[in-house]
Amino acid sequence: MLIEQRLEDVLTAFASPDPTPGGGSASALASAIGVSLLAMVAGLPKTRSNSDEDRAALSEALASVRGLRARLAEAIDADTAAYDAVVAAYRQPKGTDEEKAARSQAIQRALRGATEVPLRVMRLSAEALAAAKVVAARGNPSASSDVGVAMALLRAGLEGARLNVDVNLGSIKDEAYSRAVADEVARLAAAG
Amino acid sequence: MLIEQRLEDVLTAFASPDPTPGGGSASALASAIGVSLLAMVAGLPKTRSNSDEDRAALSEALASVRGLRARLAEAIDADTAAYDAVVAAYRQPKGTDEEKAARSQAIQRALRGATEVPLRVMRLSAEALAAAKVVAARGNPSASSDVGVAMALLRAGLEGARLNVDVNLGSIKDEAYSRAVADEVARLAAAG
Repeated sequence: MLIEQRLEDVLTAFASPDPTPGGGSASALASAIGVSLLAMVAGLPKTRSNSDEDRAALSEALASVRGLRARLAEAIDADTAAYDAVVAAYRQPKGTDEEKAARSQAIQRALRGATEVPLRVMRLSAEALAAAKVVAARGNPSASSDVGVAMALLRAGLEGARLNVDVNLGSIKDEAYSRAVADEVARLAAAG
Repeated sequence: MLIEQRLEDVLTAFASPDPTPGGGSASALASAIGVSLLAMVAGLPKTRSNSDEDRAALSEALASVRGLRARLAEAIDADTAAYDAVVAAYRQPKGTDEEKAARSQAIQRALRGATEVPLRVMRLSAEALAAAKVVAARGNPSASSDVGVAMALLRAGLEGARLNVDVNLGSIKDEAYSRAVADEVARLAAAG
Protein backbone atom coordinates (compact mmCIF):
# COMPACT_ATOMS: atom_id res chain seq x y z
CA MET A 1 0.00 0.00 0.00
CA LEU A 2 1.29 3.41 -1.05
CA ILE A 3 -0.13 5.05 2.07
CA GLU A 4 2.17 2.90 4.24
CA GLN A 5 5.33 3.68 2.25
CA ARG A 6 7.96 6.32 2.91
CA LEU A 7 7.36 9.52 0.92
CA GLU A 8 10.67 9.06 -0.92
CA ASP A 9 9.55 5.57 -2.03
CA VAL A 10 6.12 6.89 -3.04
CA LEU A 11 7.80 9.37 -5.41
CA THR A 12 10.01 6.59 -6.77
CA ALA A 13 6.93 4.40 -7.35
CA PHE A 14 5.23 7.19 -9.35
CA ALA A 15 8.45 7.70 -11.37
CA SER A 16 8.88 4.02 -12.28
CA PRO A 17 7.65 2.98 -15.76
CA ASP A 18 5.20 0.49 -14.17
CA PRO A 19 1.66 1.66 -14.98
CA THR A 20 0.63 1.81 -11.30
CA PRO A 21 0.67 3.95 -9.31
CA GLY A 22 -0.24 6.49 -11.99
CA GLY A 23 -2.20 9.67 -12.52
CA GLY A 24 -5.34 8.43 -10.75
CA SER A 25 -3.54 7.78 -7.46
CA ALA A 26 -1.57 11.01 -7.89
CA SER A 27 -4.83 12.96 -8.25
CA ALA A 28 -6.25 11.43 -5.07
CA LEU A 29 -2.97 12.25 -3.29
CA ALA A 30 -3.04 15.86 -4.52
CA SER A 31 -6.50 16.33 -3.01
CA ALA A 32 -5.53 14.46 0.18
CA ILE A 33 -2.64 16.93 0.70
CA GLY A 34 -4.94 19.87 -0.07
CA VAL A 35 -7.57 18.76 2.41
CA SER A 36 -4.88 18.13 5.05
CA LEU A 37 -3.74 21.76 4.74
CA LEU A 38 -7.36 22.84 5.18
CA ALA A 39 -7.53 20.80 8.39
CA MET A 40 -4.40 22.60 9.61
CA VAL A 41 -5.94 26.05 9.09
CA ALA A 42 -9.40 25.05 10.40
CA GLY A 43 -7.69 23.71 13.55
CA LEU A 44 -5.71 26.88 14.37
CA PRO A 45 -6.69 28.40 17.72
CA LYS A 46 -7.21 31.87 16.21
CA THR A 47 -9.99 32.54 13.72
CA ARG A 48 -10.45 35.60 11.50
CA SER A 49 -12.51 37.61 14.00
CA ASN A 50 -12.28 35.28 17.02
CA SER A 51 -16.10 35.40 17.13
CA ASP A 52 -18.13 32.38 18.28
CA GLU A 53 -19.67 32.29 14.82
CA ASP A 54 -16.26 31.91 13.12
CA ARG A 55 -15.24 29.32 15.68
CA ALA A 56 -18.39 27.24 15.16
CA ALA A 57 -18.14 27.41 11.35
CA LEU A 58 -14.48 26.34 11.43
CA SER A 59 -15.14 23.53 13.83
CA GLU A 60 -17.82 22.21 11.47
CA ALA A 61 -15.44 22.62 8.49
CA LEU A 62 -12.73 20.76 10.42
CA ALA A 63 -15.01 17.78 11.06
CA SER A 64 -15.95 17.72 7.39
CA VAL A 65 -12.38 17.93 6.04
CA ARG A 66 -11.21 15.21 8.45
CA GLY A 67 -13.76 12.83 6.94
CA LEU A 68 -12.80 13.89 3.40
CA ARG A 69 -9.14 13.37 4.19
CA ALA A 70 -9.68 9.77 5.31
CA ARG A 71 -11.68 9.00 2.16
CA LEU A 72 -9.19 10.69 -0.19
CA ALA A 73 -6.32 8.83 1.48
CA GLU A 74 -8.19 5.55 0.84
CA ALA A 75 -8.69 6.50 -2.81
CA ILE A 76 -4.90 6.69 -3.39
CA ASP A 77 -4.58 2.91 -3.14
CA ALA A 78 -8.12 2.17 -4.36
CA ASP A 79 -7.27 3.74 -7.72
CA THR A 80 -4.22 1.53 -8.13
CA ALA A 81 -6.28 -1.57 -7.25
CA ALA A 82 -9.02 -0.58 -9.72
CA TYR A 83 -6.49 -0.10 -12.53
CA ASP A 84 -4.82 -3.43 -11.75
CA ALA A 85 -8.26 -5.10 -12.03
CA VAL A 86 -8.67 -3.64 -15.54
CA VAL A 87 -5.26 -4.99 -16.59
CA ALA A 88 -6.16 -8.43 -15.14
CA ALA A 89 -9.48 -8.46 -17.02
CA TYR A 90 -7.77 -7.69 -20.34
CA ARG A 91 -5.44 -10.65 -19.68
CA GLN A 92 -8.30 -13.16 -19.36
CA PRO A 93 -8.28 -15.92 -22.01
CA LYS A 94 -10.18 -15.28 -25.25
CA GLY A 95 -9.86 -18.64 -27.04
CA THR A 96 -13.55 -19.63 -27.17
CA ASP A 97 -16.74 -17.58 -27.59
CA GLU A 98 -17.62 -18.20 -23.93
CA GLU A 99 -14.19 -16.96 -22.86
CA LYS A 100 -14.53 -13.92 -25.10
CA ALA A 101 -17.93 -13.06 -23.59
CA ALA A 102 -16.69 -13.60 -20.02
CA ARG A 103 -13.58 -11.49 -20.70
CA SER A 104 -15.58 -8.68 -22.25
CA GLN A 105 -17.95 -8.65 -19.26
CA ALA A 106 -15.02 -8.67 -16.82
CA ILE A 107 -13.41 -5.75 -18.69
CA GLN A 108 -16.61 -3.71 -18.59
CA ARG A 109 -17.06 -4.41 -14.87
CA ALA A 110 -13.43 -3.48 -14.14
CA LEU A 111 -13.65 -0.29 -16.22
CA ARG A 112 -16.65 0.76 -14.16
CA GLY A 113 -14.62 0.23 -11.00
CA ALA A 114 -11.77 2.27 -12.49
CA THR A 115 -14.27 5.04 -13.33
CA GLU A 116 -15.91 5.08 -9.90
CA VAL A 117 -12.68 5.77 -7.98
CA PRO A 118 -11.68 9.00 -9.80
CA LEU A 119 -15.36 10.02 -9.87
CA ARG A 120 -15.36 9.67 -6.08
CA VAL A 121 -12.14 11.71 -5.94
CA MET A 122 -13.90 14.42 -7.97
CA ARG A 123 -16.86 14.41 -5.56
CA LEU A 124 -14.62 14.57 -2.47
CA SER A 125 -12.45 17.32 -4.02
CA ALA A 126 -15.51 19.40 -4.91
CA GLU A 127 -16.78 19.03 -1.31
CA ALA A 128 -13.35 20.03 -0.01
CA LEU A 129 -13.32 23.12 -2.26
CA ALA A 130 -16.65 24.15 -0.71
CA ALA A 131 -15.14 23.71 2.78
CA ALA A 132 -12.10 25.73 1.62
CA LYS A 133 -14.34 28.74 1.04
CA VAL A 134 -15.50 28.58 4.67
CA VAL A 135 -11.91 28.20 5.91
CA ALA A 136 -10.77 31.12 3.72
CA ALA A 137 -13.58 33.33 5.04
CA ARG A 138 -13.34 32.39 8.73
CA GLY A 139 -9.81 31.10 9.32
CA ASN A 140 -6.77 32.94 10.66
CA PRO A 141 -5.70 35.37 7.91
CA SER A 142 -2.03 34.62 8.68
CA ALA A 143 -2.61 31.19 7.11
CA SER A 144 -4.33 32.45 3.97
CA SER A 145 -1.49 31.31 1.70
CA ASP A 146 -1.95 27.77 3.09
CA VAL A 147 -5.63 27.92 2.11
CA GLY A 148 -4.57 29.15 -1.34
CA VAL A 149 -2.15 26.22 -1.73
CA ALA A 150 -4.87 23.83 -0.52
CA MET A 151 -7.26 25.14 -3.18
CA ALA A 152 -4.61 24.84 -5.93
CA LEU A 153 -4.01 21.21 -4.92
CA LEU A 154 -7.73 20.42 -4.75
CA ARG A 155 -8.27 21.89 -8.21
CA ALA A 156 -5.34 19.80 -9.52
CA GLY A 157 -6.88 16.70 -7.90
CA LEU A 158 -10.29 17.50 -9.41
CA GLU A 159 -8.82 18.08 -12.87
CA GLY A 160 -6.55 15.04 -12.70
CA ALA A 161 -9.38 12.78 -11.54
CA ARG A 162 -11.52 14.08 -14.39
CA LEU A 163 -8.86 13.03 -16.92
CA ASN A 164 -8.94 9.55 -15.39
CA VAL A 165 -12.73 9.30 -15.48
CA ASP A 166 -12.71 10.37 -19.14
CA VAL A 167 -10.08 7.80 -20.16
CA ASN A 168 -12.12 4.92 -18.71
CA LEU A 169 -15.46 6.25 -19.89
CA GLY A 170 -14.13 6.09 -23.47
CA SER A 171 -14.11 2.26 -23.30
CA ILE A 172 -17.40 1.72 -21.45
CA LYS A 173 -20.20 0.39 -23.66
CA ASP A 174 -23.19 1.11 -21.38
CA GLU A 175 -24.31 4.40 -22.87
CA ALA A 176 -26.82 5.31 -20.17
CA TYR A 177 -24.12 4.88 -17.52
CA SER A 178 -21.60 6.85 -19.57
CA ARG A 179 -24.03 9.70 -20.10
CA ALA A 180 -24.95 9.87 -16.41
CA VAL A 181 -21.27 9.93 -15.40
CA ALA A 182 -20.39 12.55 -18.05
CA ASP A 183 -23.19 14.77 -16.74
CA GLU A 184 -21.98 14.46 -13.15
CA VAL A 185 -18.37 15.09 -14.23
CA ALA A 186 -19.38 18.32 -15.97
CA ARG A 187 -21.23 19.48 -12.83
CA LEU A 188 -18.33 18.58 -10.52
CA ALA A 189 -15.68 20.14 -12.79
CA ALA A 190 -17.52 23.44 -12.42
CA ALA A 191 -16.54 23.38 -8.71
CA GLY A 192 -12.89 23.90 -9.70
CA MET B 1 12.50 14.81 7.60
CA LEU B 2 9.16 14.59 5.81
CA ILE B 3 10.71 12.73 2.86
CA GLU B 4 11.63 9.85 5.21
CA GLN B 5 8.17 9.56 6.78
CA ARG B 6 5.32 7.25 5.81
CA LEU B 7 2.82 8.89 3.47
CA GLU B 8 0.06 8.51 6.07
CA ASP B 9 2.20 10.41 8.61
CA VAL B 10 3.07 13.08 6.05
CA LEU B 11 -0.64 13.79 5.56
CA THR B 12 -1.13 13.86 9.33
CA ALA B 13 1.77 16.34 9.66
CA PHE B 14 0.18 18.67 7.08
CA ALA B 15 -3.17 18.39 8.89
CA SER B 16 -1.79 19.25 12.34
CA PRO B 17 -2.23 22.86 13.51
CA ASP B 18 1.58 23.23 13.80
CA PRO B 19 2.70 25.82 11.25
CA THR B 20 5.17 23.43 9.58
CA PRO B 21 4.95 21.58 7.31
CA GLY B 22 2.66 24.04 5.52
CA GLY B 23 1.79 25.31 2.08
CA GLY B 24 5.40 25.80 0.98
CA SER B 25 6.34 22.16 1.54
CA ALA B 26 3.00 21.05 0.06
CA SER B 27 3.74 23.04 -3.12
CA ALA B 28 7.18 21.44 -3.48
CA LEU B 29 5.56 18.03 -2.93
CA ALA B 30 2.88 18.71 -5.56
CA SER B 31 5.57 19.45 -8.15
CA ALA B 32 7.68 16.48 -7.01
CA ILE B 33 4.71 14.15 -7.65
CA GLY B 34 4.06 15.83 -11.02
CA VAL B 35 7.64 15.45 -12.17
CA SER B 36 7.69 11.82 -10.99
CA LEU B 37 4.71 11.06 -13.24
CA LEU B 38 6.58 12.69 -16.13
CA ALA B 39 9.53 10.38 -15.45
CA MET B 40 7.16 7.40 -15.61
CA VAL B 41 5.86 8.40 -19.06
CA ALA B 42 9.29 9.44 -20.40
CA GLY B 43 10.63 6.03 -19.30
CA LEU B 44 7.97 3.92 -21.06
CA PRO B 45 9.43 1.63 -23.74
CA LYS B 46 6.97 2.81 -26.42
CA THR B 47 7.02 6.38 -27.71
CA ARG B 48 4.39 8.16 -29.80
CA SER B 49 5.81 7.12 -33.19
CA ASN B 50 8.58 4.77 -32.01
CA SER B 51 10.99 6.88 -34.11
CA ASP B 52 14.61 7.40 -33.06
CA GLU B 53 13.85 11.11 -32.81
CA ASP B 54 11.04 10.56 -30.26
CA ARG B 55 13.22 8.12 -28.34
CA ALA B 56 16.14 10.57 -28.16
CA ALA B 57 13.93 13.50 -27.11
CA LEU B 58 12.27 11.43 -24.37
CA SER B 59 15.56 10.12 -23.10
CA GLU B 60 16.80 13.71 -22.78
CA ALA B 61 13.52 14.70 -21.05
CA LEU B 62 13.90 11.75 -18.67
CA ALA B 63 17.39 12.85 -17.62
CA SER B 64 16.10 16.38 -17.05
CA VAL B 65 13.03 15.38 -14.99
CA ARG B 66 15.12 13.02 -12.85
CA GLY B 67 17.32 15.95 -11.84
CA LEU B 68 14.27 18.14 -11.22
CA ARG B 69 12.67 15.42 -9.10
CA ALA B 70 15.67 15.18 -6.79
CA ARG B 71 15.75 18.97 -6.33
CA LEU B 72 12.00 19.27 -5.76
CA ALA B 73 12.12 16.43 -3.22
CA GLU B 74 14.86 18.34 -1.37
CA ALA B 75 12.74 21.50 -1.39
CA ILE B 76 9.95 19.76 0.58
CA ASP B 77 12.06 19.74 3.76
CA ALA B 78 14.08 22.85 2.84
CA ASP B 79 10.90 24.92 2.94
CA THR B 80 10.04 23.69 6.43
CA ALA B 81 13.60 24.48 7.63
CA ALA B 82 13.45 27.96 6.08
CA TYR B 83 10.13 28.72 7.78
CA ASP B 84 11.41 27.43 11.13
CA ALA B 85 14.38 29.82 10.77
CA VAL B 86 11.98 32.76 10.35
CA VAL B 87 10.08 31.77 13.50
CA ALA B 88 13.39 31.43 15.41
CA ALA B 89 14.52 34.88 14.23
CA TYR B 90 11.27 36.50 15.42
CA ARG B 91 11.86 34.90 18.83
CA GLN B 92 15.29 36.54 19.29
CA PRO B 93 15.50 38.93 22.26
CA LYS B 94 14.63 42.58 21.65
CA GLY B 95 15.46 44.14 25.03
CA THR B 96 18.27 46.49 23.97
CA ASP B 97 18.86 48.50 20.79
CA GLU B 98 21.68 46.10 19.84
CA GLU B 99 19.36 43.13 20.31
CA LYS B 100 16.65 44.84 18.28
CA ALA B 101 19.07 45.53 15.41
CA ALA B 102 20.46 41.97 15.49
CA ARG B 103 16.94 40.52 15.58
CA SER B 104 15.78 42.66 12.70
CA GLN B 105 18.79 41.62 10.63
CA ALA B 106 18.22 37.95 11.47
CA ILE B 107 14.56 38.24 10.48
CA GLN B 108 15.43 39.83 7.14
CA ARG B 109 18.04 37.14 6.45
CA ALA B 110 15.62 34.35 7.37
CA LEU B 111 12.84 35.88 5.24
CA ARG B 112 15.17 35.84 2.26
CA GLY B 113 15.85 32.16 2.88
CA ALA B 114 12.10 31.51 3.11
CA THR B 115 11.64 33.38 -0.19
CA GLU B 116 14.42 31.55 -2.03
CA VAL B 117 12.98 28.07 -1.43
CA PRO B 118 9.55 28.64 -3.03
CA LEU B 119 11.23 30.75 -5.74
CA ARG B 120 13.39 27.71 -6.51
CA VAL B 121 10.26 25.53 -6.53
CA MET B 122 8.75 27.94 -9.08
CA ARG B 123 11.87 27.69 -11.28
CA LEU B 124 11.97 23.88 -11.08
CA SER B 125 8.21 23.62 -11.75
CA ALA B 126 8.47 25.90 -14.79
CA GLU B 127 11.34 23.76 -16.15
CA ALA B 128 9.29 20.63 -15.53
CA LEU B 129 6.31 22.14 -17.39
CA ALA B 130 8.62 22.72 -20.37
CA ALA B 131 9.72 19.06 -20.20
CA ALA B 132 6.05 18.03 -19.93
CA LYS B 133 5.40 19.52 -23.38
CA VAL B 134 8.12 17.27 -24.86
CA VAL B 135 6.72 14.23 -23.01
CA ALA B 136 3.17 15.07 -24.19
CA ALA B 137 4.34 15.42 -27.82
CA ARG B 138 6.64 12.37 -27.95
CA GLY B 139 5.47 9.97 -25.22
CA ASN B 140 3.19 6.96 -25.50
CA PRO B 141 -0.33 8.32 -26.15
CA SER B 142 -1.80 5.65 -23.86
CA ALA B 143 -0.25 7.59 -20.95
CA SER B 144 -1.52 11.00 -22.01
CA SER B 145 -3.82 11.31 -18.98
CA ASP B 146 -0.77 10.78 -16.74
CA VAL B 147 0.96 13.69 -18.49
CA GLY B 148 -2.20 15.74 -17.99
CA VAL B 149 -2.25 14.95 -14.26
CA ALA B 150 1.48 15.77 -14.06
CA MET B 151 0.84 19.18 -15.63
CA ALA B 152 -2.07 19.91 -13.26
CA LEU B 153 0.18 19.08 -10.28
CA LEU B 154 3.08 21.17 -11.62
CA ARG B 155 0.77 24.15 -12.15
CA ALA B 156 -0.55 23.72 -8.59
CA GLY B 157 3.06 23.59 -7.32
CA LEU B 158 3.95 26.71 -9.31
CA GLU B 159 0.89 28.61 -8.07
CA GLY B 160 1.32 27.45 -4.47
CA ALA B 161 5.00 28.36 -4.43
CA ARG B 162 4.12 31.79 -5.81
CA LEU B 163 1.74 32.40 -2.88
CA ASN B 164 4.59 31.55 -0.52
CA VAL B 165 7.08 33.83 -2.26
CA ASP B 166 4.55 36.67 -2.12
CA VAL B 167 3.85 36.23 1.62
CA ASN B 168 7.54 36.51 2.49
CA LEU B 169 8.27 39.27 0.01
CA GLY B 170 5.68 41.41 1.79
CA SER B 171 7.95 41.62 4.87
CA ILE B 172 11.31 42.08 3.09
CA LYS B 173 12.68 45.62 3.33
CA ASP B 174 15.32 45.44 0.59
CA GLU B 175 13.35 46.99 -2.25
CA ALA B 176 15.82 46.17 -5.03
CA TYR B 177 15.74 42.50 -4.01
CA SER B 178 11.93 42.49 -3.75
CA ARG B 179 11.56 44.07 -7.16
CA ALA B 180 13.95 41.59 -8.80
CA VAL B 181 12.11 38.64 -7.21
CA ALA B 182 8.68 40.02 -8.15
CA ASP B 183 9.84 40.37 -11.77
CA GLU B 184 11.11 36.81 -11.87
CA VAL B 185 7.91 35.52 -10.21
CA ALA B 186 5.79 37.20 -12.88
CA ARG B 187 7.92 35.62 -15.65
CA LEU B 188 7.80 32.15 -14.03
CA ALA B 189 4.06 32.30 -13.32
CA ALA B 190 3.50 32.76 -17.05
CA ALA B 191 4.86 29.20 -17.52
CA GLY B 192 1.75 27.81 -15.77
